[in-house]
Order: sequence, then C-alpha cells, then structure tokens
Amino acid sequence: MTLYEEIHEQPAVLAHSLEQNLPLAQAIAGAVPAESLHHVFIAARGTSDNAARYANYLWGAKNHLPVTLATPSLFSLYQQPPRLQGALVVGVSQSGESPDIVNVVAEGRRQGQPTLAITNEPESPLAQTADFVINIHAGRETAVAATKTYTAQLLAIALLSAAWSEDEAQFGALNRLPDWVSAVLAFDEKIKRMAERYRYMQQCVILGRGFNYATVFEWSLKLKELTYVVALPYSSADFRHGPIAIVDQGFPIMAVAPRGAVLDDVRTLLRKLAEDRRAELLVISDDAETLSLTESNVPLPDDLPEWISPLVSIVPAQLFCYHLTRLKGYDTEAPRGLNKVTHTI
Amino acid sequence: MTLYEEIHEQPAVLAHSLEQNLPLAQAIAGAVPAESLHHVFIAARGTSDNAARYANYLWGAKNHLPVTLATPSLFSLYQQPPRLQGALVVGVSQSGESPDIVNVVAEGRRQGQPTLAITNEPESPLAQTADFVINIHAGRETAVAATKTYTAQLLAIALLSAAWSEDEAQFGALNRLPDWVSAVLAFDEKIKRMAERYRYMQQCVILGRGFNYATVFEWSLKLKELTYVVALPYSSADFRHGPIAIVDQGFPIMAVAPRGAVLDDVRTLLRKLAEDRRAELLVISDDAETLSLTESNVPLPDDLPEWISPLVSIVPAQLFCYHLTRLKGYDTEAPRGLNKVTHTI
Repeated sequence: MTLYEEIHEQPAVLAHSLEQNLPLAQAIAGAVPAESLHHVFIAARGTSDNAARYANYLWGAKNHLPVTLATPSLFSLYQQPPRLQGALVVGVSQSGESPDIVNVVAEGRRQGQPTLAITNEPESPLAQTADFVINIHAGRETAVAATKTYTAQLLAIALLSAAWSEDEAQFGALNRLPDWVSAVLAFDEKIKRMAERYRYMQQCVILGRGFNYATVFEWSLKLKELTYVVALPYSSADFRHGPIAIVDQGFPIMAVAPRGAVLDDVRTLLRKLAEDRRAELLVISDDAETLSLTESNVPLPDDLPEWISPLVSIVPAQLFCYHLTRLKGYDTEAPRGLNKVTHTI
Repeated sequence: MTLYEEIHEQPAVLAHSLEQNLPLAQAIAGAVPAESLHHVFIAARGTSDNAARYANYLWGAKNHLPVTLATPSLFSLYQQPPRLQGALVVGVSQSGESPDIVNVVAEGRRQGQPTLAITNEPESPLAQTADFVINIHAGRETAVAATKTYTAQLLAIALLSAAWSEDEAQFGALNRLPDWVSAVLAFDEKIKRMAERYRYMQQCVILGRGFNYATVFEWSLKLKELTYVVALPYSSADFRHGPIAIVDQGFPIMAVAPRGAVLDDVRTLLRKLAEDRRAELLVISDDAETLSLTESNVPLPDDLPEWISPLVSIVPAQLFCYHLTRLKGYDTEAPRGLNKVTHTI
C-alpha cells in the first residue's frame, strides 16, 4: 500500500483495532489498576514518542497518573537505570525492534514492575519482553512515514484510559472515532489546494497545547520526514518563553486548536502572531473564531471531545504533508536516508 | 550589565553560588533523602526547562531517581492534576513568577509532598510556595536572554545530586567548575571569527545526547531568541528516527560531544552526516577525533567529567549566539517581542 492509501485506510484500521482491543484493555486495566501505580514510565522514539506524549496528557487528565518519558540512554549507554518502584513500564514501538526501547522494558521487568508493550508486531523483541502486549492491529505499514500505526497507537492509549476509568462516555466517543476520521478525510481536495501555497516553504512552527501537544510533534515530524521542511513543534506556553522571537512578517505558523480547555490560550497566541507579527496562519479547529483567523483552515467535526481529538486532528495534517511532498517533487513512500525500522541504542 | 558581561561573569557567579549553596544542598538532601522518593516531578519553562532536562539525566544517572517533566496545563487549564504520591515536586524559574509553575508546586504541597524551588528570586511567589528554596545567587540578570541564571540553575541541580550521593568526586569536580568555565571563555575571539561563516544561516540542527541533551536545547533556544535562526534540538538517537531526512549538502549541524558514555553514538552520527550527506559541522568537544571532523570547533578542557560538562559546554555556545547576533545586526540585550519575565498559565 502507498502512504496515501494508508492515510485513507485509517477509519477501517481504527474500527478493527477498537474491536480487537477493547476486552484486552479492560483485562490489563483489571490486572494493573491505575490506583496501584505511582506513575507510568514510557520509552519510545520518533512517531511512537509522539504517541507517548498523548499518554502523558490523557493518563494524567483522565486517570490522574503522572507519566514519565524515559531517557533510554540512562539504561543503555550509561548503564545507570533509575529505580522504577511504583511504575508501570511501557514501551511503544511500531516495529518492536529498537534495542534502546526493549532495554527499558527489560529493566522494568528485572526490577519486578509490571510492563506493557504497545506495538504492531506481536512477535517482536519488545512484545516478547513485556508482561502485557497490546497489538495495535494496524496491518502491514509499507510507507516509511508512519500514519495508521500512529493513530492505532493513540487508540491503544485511549482504550487503556477508558478501561482504567470505566467511563462510558469515553467508550462511547471511541465508538464514533472511525466516523470522525472519515469526516476529516473528506477534506482531502481542499487540503491539496491549500498545500500549494506552501510549495517553497522551508521552515515553520507548529503550535498547540494539552492533548494535542502530541499532534504538534507528530505533524512537525511528518513535515520533516516527508517534505524536509524545518518544522519546530511548540506548546503555546513554551513558545512564549523565548522562541516567539523568530516570528516576523509572513512566517508560517500552523496550529491545531480544537475547542476545549486550552483553546483560549492557543487562540490568543495565534491572534497575537497574526496581528502583531503578521505571521501567516494555517489552522485545524472546530472553533468558528479560530477558523476565521485564516482562509487556510480545516474544520474538525463539531461534536468532537477534546481528549479524543488528537486521533482525528492529525489526519488532515498527514494529508497536508502528503500533498506538500508531492508538490515539492519528493518521494512520498521513501524519504531520503530513512528506513522503515530504526535501531538505536 | 550587558549580555556579554553576564556571559563572562559566570566563573565568579558559579564560585559564589557554590560557596553559598553547598551547606543548603546538604541540608535538603538530609531532609529529603533520594531513597525516600519514587520520582522527582519538575515544572519549568524556557531556559529553566532546559535546566530541568539536566536534572532528568543527572538525578537519574547519579541518584537513580526517575525524573518526570510536568505538563503544567493539567494543573491549570485542565484542572486535573495527577497524583503526586512518592514525588519530590520541584519548580525551576529564574523569576519565580510564572503562574503555571507556581501552580504545580502549590498542588504538590496540597498533596502533602515535599516541594523545592530553584530560583534567582527568593521572595518570589514560587519561593514562597515551596518547602525548600535554593536561591541560585546569580545576581541581577539584565539581558533578556538568560545565561548566568541557566548555569547557576544547573549548579543547584548538580549540588543537590552530589549531596544526595555524598560523592567526594562530585564535590571535587564542582570546586573546579569556575576554572573550567574560565578556560572556555578564553576562546571568545576564536568563536567570534567562527561565527562569521554563519552570518546568513537561517536554520540548523543542534545535536547531542545524555547529560548534554540539556545543552542542545539551551543552545537551540538561545539561537532562536537572539539570532532568530530556526534551530532544531535533537538527541542523536531521536534524530535518526525521522528528522535526519531534512539534511542535505551544506546543512549546518552543530553538536556538543564531550568524551563519555554517549560520545561514540554522537560521533558516529556526525561522521555519517558529514560524509554521506555533506552536512557542515560545528562541534564543541574534548575528543580529538570529533574536533578533527571540522575546523569550526571549540575544545573543552580535557579533564572535564561528562556529568558536569553541561555547565561548561553551554558557555562557548552562548558566546557563539552572542557574536552571531551582532553579526546579523540584531539587538543582543532585548530580542524582539520578548520580556525578561514571562507569565504563562
């Protein structure tokens, strides 16, 4: 399958993954209740690390768990792993192969902590190392740039959150997910036209906050991998603490800003960037006022809860990156110098 | 004082701060032993957040503490703070004023956890909220871009590490710190000449790993704040997982690569980038082979332990940013659109 097909396959992949993993997530939540944990310790790289950022917010907000993003070199190169008492140790990896990620989960197990692998390869070294395995069931991903494995990883994280909180509203929203993703895929042609303007863009900033901090990082990573644009990901708060200095007239700012707790903060910054700095905006949002800031916008479904929005809002960003790659004349299936599986220590 | 003077003041500031804070760090380590903690939970923004990254590695490697970097929006905008049981809750802020950082420490206190403020303002809201306060004693910092408050924050973190581990070797190295910083400041003229080549640079990548992951982020932030260059910070491991695609002939790559556990990994990547991608390198290192990769290099003192090197290696990077700012004709004292104190929620 091509990258384009894999992007469009996501409603089907998510529906299938949801069906397969609902009982499994409940079993894991029963075996390792959130209340039994002091924190969750997650090791991941690249796209999977962006999925881990979603867990950071979702498991924090919905399950009151502090989430620690691992520094794998402490386990591998430094051979000075921290004590993991009280932690659920999680490895997230599409391939399940990167030695540094496997190493962190193996250390969790050595220290007697519960361990979980979230992977698309249930026979991988990572899966074989962990006590619990969520196979994300995304099917074979051929394009080097991960798309459907990313949203399927987010889904695994969301399912475990819903299972921990036993929240019917969360389960209900998850059931609507494939339809919401289909709804944004329908903007494919609009996004293709929007991308033209960015044919010669060389750098940009991507902004968001909270649950969609993950989206900001993943959008930025896809832009770098596929279009070679130097894309800087920032939360609206961190951006104000210094990096905002880079913005002058015409600087491209992209943002994901769905309605919810952080909208006001993000929208205030976007307005300031447009009015005071004359930055050029592109936004993904379900808020009419935010959408009205620029003609380069993609609307999100208007009944989308903020906590689940990262599984939907990344999809127009994927399409944008795909179309921009083609406009720039680059290879959508195999970015220069990248392999599908990356081994790091 | 000017930015230039504040950069050059660092040996004196660090010597003074060391003298003032050694007994205090030991008292805090005695009151809150590392063994009593499951993890450390740190809230910070901007430059202070880069200092927190140093704690992430140092307290992990030397004190076996997992360090969790807080997501302040969970405490403020979402009003869904995680449980902090087993955590030392730390706020790092030069001004001690940003409401989101104060909020995280206040919540730690509400939950009955020990709290620590690392700040240059001992009367600030942050200091008044925490059980323990390390005044970094950097003196008034006038330039908007933080330099001496950054290294003084790192010193506070290093002192607490040494006090926790009661390690004479760590204390011994800390005593040599002012001399090491003086030694790199002596390369000021060389760095000024080196910077000329980058007059028209618009974007770059900064690489490093482990203890100096903090340096990578701080160097990158200073470049953005002062020179408006779009600088991407990456660990050598994360860079391989996708972002490496952006590099083509002549792309500027800067790196901090002192001898130690991660050197081989970083040097291997730098060599690959230079040979396979024809990237242009600038390196800060004490390793002869790494220095020989490019004429744009700054040597570090050759007896510098890796764990303390971030307090030294950032200094030539600060000088580089200062000189490049002047070369580009920008204001070194007040970058566009920034204030010394940033309030975020």
